[in-house]
Amino acid sequence: GFAKLDHHRQERTGFPEVVFGEGKTVEQLIVILKRLVKTNKSVLATRIAPEKAEVILQELPYFSYQATARALYSKTQELPLVRSNGYIAVVCAGTSDLAVAEEAAVTAEVFGCEVQRVYDVGVAGIHRLFENLDTIKSASASIVVAGMEGALASVLGGLVDHPVFAVPTSVGYGANFEGMSALLSMLNACAPGISVVNIDNGFGAGYNATLIQRITEKQVKV
Amino acid sequence: GFAKLDHHRQERTGFPEVVFGEGKTVEQLIVILKRLVKTNKSVLATRIAPEKAEVILQELPYFSYQATARALYSKTQELPLVRSNGYIAVVCAGTSDLAVAEEAAVTAEVFGCEVQRVYDVGVAGIHRLFENLDTIKSASASIVVAGMEGALASVLGGLVDHPVFAVPTSVGYGANFEGMSALLSMLNACAPGISVVNIDNGFGAGYNATLIQRITEKQVKV
Amino acid sequence: GFAKLDHHRQERTGFPEVVFGEGKTVEQLIVILKRLVKTNKSVLATRIAPEKAEVILQELPYFSYQATARALYSKTQELPLVRSNGYIAVVCAGTSDLAVAEEAAVTAEVFGCEVQRVYDVGVAGIHRLFENLDTIKSASASIVVAGMEGALASVLGGLVDHPVFAVPTSVGYGANFEGMSALLSMLNACAPGISVVNIDNGFGAGYNATLIQRITEKQVKV
Amino acid sequence: GFAKLDHHRQERTGFPEVVFGEGKTVEQLIVILKRLVKTNKSVLATRIAPEKAEVILQELPYFSYQATARALYSKTQELPLVRSNGYIAVVCAGTSDLAVAEEAAVTAEVFGCEVQRVYDVGVAGIHRLFENLDTIKSASASIVVAGMEGALASVLGGLVDHPVFAVPTSVGYGANFEGMSALLSMLNACAPGISVVNIDNGFGAGYNATLIQRITEKQVKV
Amino acid sequence: GFAKLDHHRQERTGFPEVVFGEGKTVEQLIVILKRLVKTNKSVLATRIAPEKAEVILQELPYFSYQATARALYSKTQELPLVRSNGYIAVVCAGTSDLAVAEEAAVTAEVFGCEVQRVYDVGVAGIHRLFENLDTIKSASASIVVAGMEGALASVLGGLVDHPVFAVPTSVGYGANFEGMSALLSMLNACAPGISVVNIDNGFGAGYNATLIQRITEKQVKV
Amino acid sequence: GFAKLDHHRQERTGFPEVVFGEGKTVEQLIVILKRLVKTNKSVLATRIAPEKAEVILQELPYFSYQATARALYSKTQELPLVRSNGYIAVVCAGTSDLAVAEEAAVTAEVFGCEVQRVYDVGVAGIHRLFENLDTIKSASASIVVAGMEGALASVLGGLVDHPVFAVPTSVGYGANFEGMSALLSMLNACAPGISVVNIDNGFGAGYNATLIQRITEKQVKV
Amino acid sequence: GFAKLDHHRQERTGFPEVVFGEGKTVEQLIVILKRLVKTNKSVLATRIAPEKAEVILQELPYFSYQATARALYSKTQELPLVRSNGYIAVVCAGTSDLAVAEEAAVTAEVFGCEVQRVYDVGVAGIHRLFENLDTIKSASASIVVAGMEGALASVLGGLVDHPVFAVPTSVGYGANFEGMSALLSMLNACAPGISVVNIDNGFGAGYNATLIQRITEKQVKV
Amino acid sequence: GFAKLDHHRQERTGFPEVVFGEGKTVEQLIVILKRLVKTNKSVLATRIAPEKAEVILQELPYFSYQATARALYSKTQELPLVRSNGYIAVVCAGTSDLAVAEEAAVTAEVFGCEVQRVYDVGVAGIHRLFENLDTIKSASASIVVAGMEGALASVLGGLVDHPVFAVPTSVGYGANFEGMSALLSMLNACAPGISVVNIDNGFGAGYNATLIQRITEKQVKV
Ligand SMILES: Nc1ncnc2c1ncn2[C@@H]1O[C@H](COP(=O)(O)O)[C@@H](O)[C@H]1O
Ligand SMILES: Nc1ncnc2c1ncn2[C@@H]1O[C@H](COP(=O)(O)O)[C@@H](O)[C@H]1O
Ligand SMILES: Nc1ncnc2c1ncn2[C@@H]1O[C@H](COP(=O)(O)O)[C@@H](O)[C@H]1O
Ligand SMILES: Nc1ncnc2c1ncn2[C@@H]1O[C@H](COP(=O)(O)O)[C@@H](O)[C@H]1O
Ligand SMILES: [Mg+2]
Ligand SMILES: [Mg+2]
Ligand SMILES: [Mg+2]
Ligand SMILES: [Mg+2]
Ligand SMILES: [Mg+2]
Ligand SMILES: [Mg+2]
Ligand SMILES: [Mg+2]
Ligand SMILES: [Mg+2]
Repeated sequence: GFAKLDHHRQERTGFPEVVFGEGKTVEQLIVILKRLVKTNKSVLATRIAPEKAEVILQELPYFSYQATARALYSKTQELPLVRSNGYIAVVCAGTSDLAVAEEAAVTAEVFGCEVQRVYDVGVAGIHRLFENLDTIKSASASIVVAGMEGALASVLGGLVDHPVFAVPTSVGYGANFEGMSALLSMLNACAPGISVVNIDNGFGAGYNATLIQRITEKQVKV
Repeated sequence: GFAKLDHHRQERTGFPEVVFGEGKTVEQLIVILKRLVKTNKSVLATRIAPEKAEVILQELPYFSYQATARALYSKTQELPLVRSNGYIAVVCAGTSDLAVAEEAAVTAEVFGCEVQRVYDVGVAGIHRLFENLDTIKSASASIVVAGMEGALASVLGGLVDHPVFAVPTSVGYGANFEGMSALLSMLNACAPGISVVNIDNGFGAGYNATLIQRITEKQVKV
Repeated sequence: GFAKLDHHRQERTGFPEVVFGEGKTVEQLIVILKRLVKTNKSVLATRIAPEKAEVILQELPYFSYQATARALYSKTQELPLVRSNGYIAVVCAGTSDLAVAEEAAVTAEVFGCEVQRVYDVGVAGIHRLFENLDTIKSASASIVVAGMEGALASVLGGLVDHPVFAVPTSVGYGANFEGMSALLSMLNACAPGISVVNIDNGFGAGYNATLIQRITEKQVKV
Repeated sequence: GFAKLDHHRQERTGFPEVVFGEGKTVEQLIVILKRLVKTNKSVLATRIAPEKAEVILQELPYFSYQATARALYSKTQELPLVRSNGYIAVVCAGTSDLAVAEEAAVTAEVFGCEVQRVYDVGVAGIHRLFENLDTIKSASASIVVAGMEGALASVLGGLVDHPVFAVPTSVGYGANFEGMSALLSMLNACAPGISVVNIDNGFGAGYNATLIQRITEKQVKV
Repeated sequence: GFAKLDHHRQERTGFPEVVFGEGKTVEQLIVILKRLVKTNKSVLATRIAPEKAEVILQELPYFSYQATARALYSKTQELPLVRSNGYIAVVCAGTSDLAVAEEAAVTAEVFGCEVQRVYDVGVAGIHRLFENLDTIKSASASIVVAGMEGALASVLGGLVDHPVFAVPTSVGYGANFEGMSALLSMLNACAPGISVVNIDNGFGAGYNATLIQRITEKQVKV
Repeated sequence: GFAKLDHHRQERTGFPEVVFGEGKTVEQLIVILKRLVKTNKSVLATRIAPEKAEVILQELPYFSYQATARALYSKTQELPLVRSNGYIAVVCAGTSDLAVAEEAAVTAEVFGCEVQRVYDVGVAGIHRLFENLDTIKSASASIVVAGMEGALASVLGGLVDHPVFAVPTSVGYGANFEGMSALLSMLNACAPGISVVNIDNGFGAGYNATLIQRITEKQVKV
Repeated sequence: GFAKLDHHRQERTGFPEVVFGEGKTVEQLIVILKRLVKTNKSVLATRIAPEKAEVILQELPYFSYQATARALYSKTQELPLVRSNGYIAVVCAGTSDLAVAEEAAVTAEVFGCEVQRVYDVGVAGIHRLFENLDTIKSASASIVVAGMEGALASVLGGLVDHPVFAVPTSVGYGANFEGMSALLSMLNACAPGISVVNIDNGFGAGYNATLIQRITEKQVKV
Repeated sequence: GFAKLDHHRQERTGFPEVVFGEGKTVEQLIVILKRLVKTNKSVLATRIAPEKAEVILQELPYFSYQATARALYSKTQELPLVRSNGYIAVVCAGTSDLAVAEEAAVTAEVFGCEVQRVYDVGVAGIHRLFENLDTIKSASASIVVAGMEGALASVLGGLVDHPVFAVPTSVGYGANFEGMSALLSMLNACAPGISVVNIDNGFGAGYNATLIQRITEKQVKV
């Protein structure tokens, strides 16, 4: 067939294959989701346009759709994949970064993590960040979502003692070059403890932060 | 003076300021290191050329120098900053990536982590990776150091259940464009659970992996 | 007229001129195809949108259209241009690379080659590649089609003893930069025996692999 | 001759032509400086390497050399070109940005401005900026000099009510791409009131800030 | 909520937060504008498409819309934010730069500045610039808006004694690369006294020039 | 008004201002064309979309429209601007380059030059070029229009003894990067006697070749 | 140890691991070469600077050094790896491309192939290519080595019926951007049957052509 | 041998092959120059470093060397290749552009053209250009050599009625990107009648202008 699903993935990496919705037809998506749901507790598809979601939900009514995140998911009643007392802070710079921030948040939530959202705290009005700093500092890991010059990642990196996953967004124009400015900015952050995922890749950051949450859980068990 | 050392940093982030040696004179470095050593248990300076190291070591004989990593450091007899049963796997693709891999390894070790080195296992002879896979899978976090096309990060990302920090190196020529090819490759990795630091930034990856080790430790204490 | 068809091409290169459909009107295409069909056994036009194909097929009913590949072709009953016992392996990383992979496959088939398709075997779940490795190893030449970080080319290059033609695709987003990441990745492949064609140029890879098949045939005749 | 000095410039723009030293021979520089000194009160040459400066100073002993800034200048006893009660704040992120910061500071000083230096206050330890904020806020204009991700410009831009001139430096490595990351970052600053000059162009920022100081002076006279 | 408005901004920087309209829904915009209007004398939103403006104006009839500038604003009867006898010259190279030039002009006007427009005076017919030079020379600050090769900034920079804010526009095609040519041109201007804002960022230039006007005002008060 | 027409231009440069149609409204175009027609013998507007042309032609029926070239023009009955016995060769590589080639040809013709078109002679079938070489060699100047790798310019440059103006086109895909490949190729041509205009700038090449034709005419008069 | 040699490689790919000399010390090279020579008939190291070669040859006198190609190799008396009646044509555009062309030629020869060299036949004087065309046409595969605009690849691709491997070189200056112009040119070649390796990668092309020669051999045996 | 000189070139293009000195050894150069001098009246080699020139001049004393232009040439007593009453204007922006300007001037002179040099007239002090405008306007063709933002080409293009050949130079720093800013600027010049050669390619512009001079001559003969 057209798709060889990676059914071993949860065994190897702890989490099932996540479907990348962009460029797949509704028909392909339905086939794939049906197959994944059979063998996995939490099934997630990202980058699903609202029009596609509508059709899929009619066929697969046990799925939910989060429109801002463009995420489609199904969670079983069973125990979540991650069980931890900690939470992940998802921090974003401006209102326009919401879609990416939500993709990160929903990814983590679908896999069982708790998420605290701290939105619209970009450095142009840096007091907004400081007002929310305690929430962020107490997280197990932070996700920083920012476009334009992406300075928020550097500032935050210097203030917390946990891993920061930075997501450059394509928000901006002109010399932003589709997210290039935020990407380079974050890769060159002068504060340590920051690592970077692809432009607009909320999923990637959510997944990485989830791995961190999992570590806290493993330790609990030991 | 010319430098405002960040003495609060350990308090805020858990680790002292690390000195970036490139572009600093031997005189500046000696002043800075002397000041840092007074208030911190583990002092690390990266990107120190051998010629500089020689002079500094005569002035500051309680420092050690690791030549491949170009790292200068001093550790006190006291408890290390990180105390964990786990270890970090530092994996590199080829012999030419050694300097960057060692910068990562030494960073983690100076802060108290155990490191397992798995070197020269690039994908052109992928059996070499599989032969060492158990060592890597049992780590708390992996660091993947690779130049050229950086494919090793993607392959490894699909095989482990812990966070992978990818370091693109500037090893290569032509359309490598000083590390651009490995950087883009790693940012676009089709396997999840990978995040990326700057080209040749072994320090950054070592620091991030150290943060992960610290989480395992925190949990132990709880 | 507006087009000077290269009627000598088959004589010089062994294969007739192939029509590049993008940017040509339906009227231009019909004129060109009619003229080519008079003097060539196998006529192929690539990058033909479905809407255009529909109109052309009504005018030229002896043509066939392969929708995924966006290829329009006509083959005579006579002997194919290539006669060989071997086959070409067309390997792709993900479902989204299908269109480019099919352009490669159809190009080779129109000229008389046998093709084995090995699809959706990207390195994020590398066992899928190993499960299909025998099929690939027995081919005379492989075509590897991959977007994102294009790591599949390097991995395969280290495993086979025949020429590998790598096709970067524009599948991906963000720091993919319209296929740039896969292109650079493949040009910098650490495994030898790989050569690269333009981004999304399935036709080019199919043509090159066909030349290889032809060599096996020439030898047979000698 | 090889150089057509712009003797009208002070008349048109308020300030004499400043000599760009890079790529000029010592002989050319001496000829040019001698001619400029005849008709101008303040003569400035930038990008003068120490070796060149030494030779020139022997020939033109009434010139001074500032080594960090690589600037050579001569000021008459007469009234300075700018007379203002205000001052310019020159702020830089790290020790490695000193040369560029000093070029900015010296440019402003040669033309008669008062300068306050606030160095090594990068965002990785943002409290250092806040400790010096009053000095910066009371300036007529700020110059922000930063390499790597250049985040300092955005943060400062949101905190002051005067024009900020941002100078990206080429300090950094890897995905810094010779200052590209800081340049793009500053052009995309999410705080308003920031404008940008060329990478490492301390002179340009010093000149612009001097124009601001001049406005405050003009007003005083009115 | 989704937006944390920066109500302190006028206190810190002298001017209220300006709304960036691109990527915000009409609903979001109405909420934000209503909140801003309560606490600020002059409220400005940029990058508002005509369709959006129409809907917002029905809800908020005390706003005005300037279509060329795509700017929506509301000014109180009270004293303007800036009170100065001087004016700002907004100079543009061609008819296609009008939208960006008007964004700059309207920004300055909303905050209380007087503006003189000098449009379509690009260097291909340089006499047009000289015919209008007196108007430009008497301004407190100039804004130069130009696409293609952006040469107008350099020429003007050499002719005036006040700060010039250069706005590269994305007007052009081919090797213009979406404004890159004008941006690089302006950053490399051989005349001093020029600083640059982002491509198409009329708002940024208008804001910077307004800061200059404010300085003239402050002095008046002293 | 919004446009300051450059009525002196013919006096200075020998030819009237040519209108760049892209980004201008039909209303603006009609105003401008009416004004130009009053004072110039030959009026030309380029980049006029068919829909716009239709409206303008109803208002200005003495204009003609050439659809492939997207050019609108009006020529008086009087003597043409250029009177020469020679002609210009417009050579293009493929059918997809026609629009740009025609823009070049029509520009030259509107100003009075004779043009010989040699189309679809790209280097993939280089005999087509040789079959038409006599026509090209006898021209006063050649214009070479090519996309993809733009090799035609180098080949032709080595075969003729007159100036060659090379126009890279944006025809192609993938690593063509919107004409970048042909542009760089032509700038690096190993044959001398080639100069380059902007990507897709048929007008620029036509204008330059017209200047050459004019020289032949001047000489005739002497 | 620092290097995990890939001793299985000949088994998998038909040829032993080739040593990339750049960035390896003489000591590392001697260790590696000694180990490889034990288990392989033909040992090749590329990118070996003359100074290094001299030292190695003293230690390993059974190695030979080809200075233009910067290649060090050892071949046993036994049967070569490839046995074929055909030959490979190595074609280069200019004298400055010699080093890369020779790296390709020597690679093929070390593995047992016959090579015909056709040098300095760039398209600026295209008759030089035609004078040597018969030699090229009779080859089993061609390697085209060219810098600057790399047009030679396209021209040749349209004239032969075997696979062409194109090697862009970094020969050139300015808009050549270290080989970028030739690379893009070759990737966009309008003639089919061309595939591309990395800039200056003579080895890669030699290896690929050797694979082709091997196919002719396999057939012979059948 | 290593070089296939293009002895037909003068016949085809009117001028002999010019030797590109960069990357050729002194030995290679002597061989080539000796062979060229036998069959050509004017022999020119560009990019010859002073050290190389010294050695060559001892061997070939009938050659002359122009150090600024780095050009080595030999002219016979016979009639020059070009005989025209007109002259070429070589215009440059700053002192640092001299080497490239002289390469252009010497190229034209070696082939028999008269040259007028107008140097250091960059747009920062545009009156210097106007003071020399008559000299430029009376030329048959202009060459404009400029680095940084290259604005001089656009300004001049709008003032003359003959072809302008623009040479971007790599003079500048930072966002100049090795001449990229001037190159893009000149390709996007808003004035028509400008065509561009490679960065620093003085030779190319000199050759093109020589072709123009030749046309004026041809006409004279007719
Ligand atoms: N939004 C996303 N961005 C990047 N990668 C994703 C995203 N969503 C899913 N993936 C990855 O894409 C892979 C699936 O690709 P596919 O086989 O095309 O569905 C999975 O292995 C995921 O790790
Ligand atoms: N090799 C390295 N690469 C990137 N950043 C580093 C490196 N070594 C130290 N740093 C960071 O550089 C900062 C110190 O910079 P500086 O003030 O210039 O010494 C510290 O905060 C470190 O986090
Ligand atoms: N999909 C394709 N990608 C790249 N080149 C192609 C493709 N299809 C056909 N071609 C080439 O394009 C040339 C024809 O171009 P044209 O004259 O525009 O039809 C032929 O010589 C083919 O080698
Ligand atoms: N300075 C230069 N820049 C670019 N091309 C040049 C230069 N000097 C000579 N050439 C060209 O280089 C070709 C000679 O190259 P080569 O065979 O390497 O000597 C000649 O055809 C000239 O047209
Ligand atoms: Mg906000
Ligand atoms: Mg190895
Ligand atoms: Mg898949
Ligand atoms: Mg510091
Ligand atoms: Mg105009
Ligand atoms: Mg064709
Ligand atoms: Mg040659
Ligand atoms: Mg000067």
